[in-house]
Amino acid sequence: MTARLDQQFAFLMEADRLKRVLRATPIADGSRRENSGEHSWHLALYAMVLADHAGPAVSIDRVVKMLILHDLVEIDTGDVPIHSANGQAHGSAEVAEAEARAADRIFGLLPPDIGAPLRALWEEFEANESPDAIFAKSIDRVQPVLHNIASGGGSWTDYNVTFDQLETRVGHKVARGAPAIWDHVRAIALAWFDGR
Amino acid sequence: MTARLDQQFAFLMEADRLKRVLRATPIADGSRRENSGEHSWHLALYAMVLADHAGPAVSIDRVVKMLILHDLVEIDTGDVPIHSANGQAHGSAEVAEAEARAADRIFGLLPPDIGAPLRALWEEFEANESPDAIFAKSIDRVQPVLHNIASGGGSWTDYNVTFDQLETRVGHKVARGAPAIWDHVRAIALAWFDGR
Repeated sequence: MTARLDQQFAFLMEADRLKRVLRATPIADGSRRENSGEHSWHLALYAMVLADHAGPAVSIDRVVKMLILHDLVEIDTGDVPIHSANGQAHGSAEVAEAEARAADRIFGLLPPDIGAPLRALWEEFEANESPDAIFAKSIDRVQPVLHNIASGGGSWTDYNVTFDQLETRVGHKVARGAPAIWDHVRAIALAWFDGR
Repeated sequence: MTARLDQQFAFLMEADRLKRVLRATPIADGSRRENSGEHSWHLALYAMVLADHAGPAVSIDRVVKMLILHDLVEIDTGDVPIHSANGQAHGSAEVAEAEARAADRIFGLLPPDIGAPLRALWEEFEANESPDAIFAKSIDRVQPVLHNIASGGGSWTDYNVTFDQLETRVGHKVARGAPAIWDHVRAIALAWFDGR
């Protein structure tokens, strides 16, 4: 029991480091960059509140847990901003390998009966094929759009992003899992880019 | 649809302010104080990883959602550190009224069919009577113990806390929902206080 709890707490202490991984996007008031821990919390809340936009095949309980876990590998790999020069490396073999190594190490801190299902949930998110993963990815993509607008530009200003780039890099992915949400946010974003 | 999504996003944007509410306890490396948003994320992960210590009557999916919501009222009321001079006001009528007003305002930003069940989940957590709430409260109490130890004292140093005070204010509450976890963490905390 004690050895098992030591492993569980070693993992939870390691997970704390996600609070020091900074993202390109600011928190909504623009006062500082968001960290990946608080980002993961916010996305879980997004999933709970926007559940009426998930299709009938989606389990919100699984989506919430997926979003709690989805960025843990960034403890080793850092965050790769989608609009940065490296942003198009998202999903490349090199990034996928680095993330798999990170997942080996981080989920490997846990007793296998706990670590294996959590890792499987993370892999399902990354594969972006199941209804739960597709909805979770939509949530992950849409939140930074709202923060960039709220804070007067955020990572769009830093990386000189156009509305067309936003539509390609972000919009199509949000629309895949949550089309009505993208319709709504797209209109807000288009007005913001037009008014710049 | 658009008015409804406006309400959903207004709530989610308001919730972002929880990332600016600072707690007495530091993140594990002691480099800064933890905010209530990232704290809520960490607790949700605790619940997922320590699920084998929840009794058979506990739904971890509900506990995770409860922990995502549990601190939202702090956007209006701030965090009251358990070991501070005001710490024993936890659960007082005055604090409970302020938190109820905060819940009225914050959950009231949502369409009622979404806001009412989320508020009910928060009230269940606060009442600390259901198996889910009792386990969630245990998780909420135990995480700061580990951060204070990891960071060399944290809020215990700031508030001159003794081991007996920790046992009374925190230990009994952790033990109520997760006795084996408190047995484990109590031994670690006792060794830390003895070695000071």
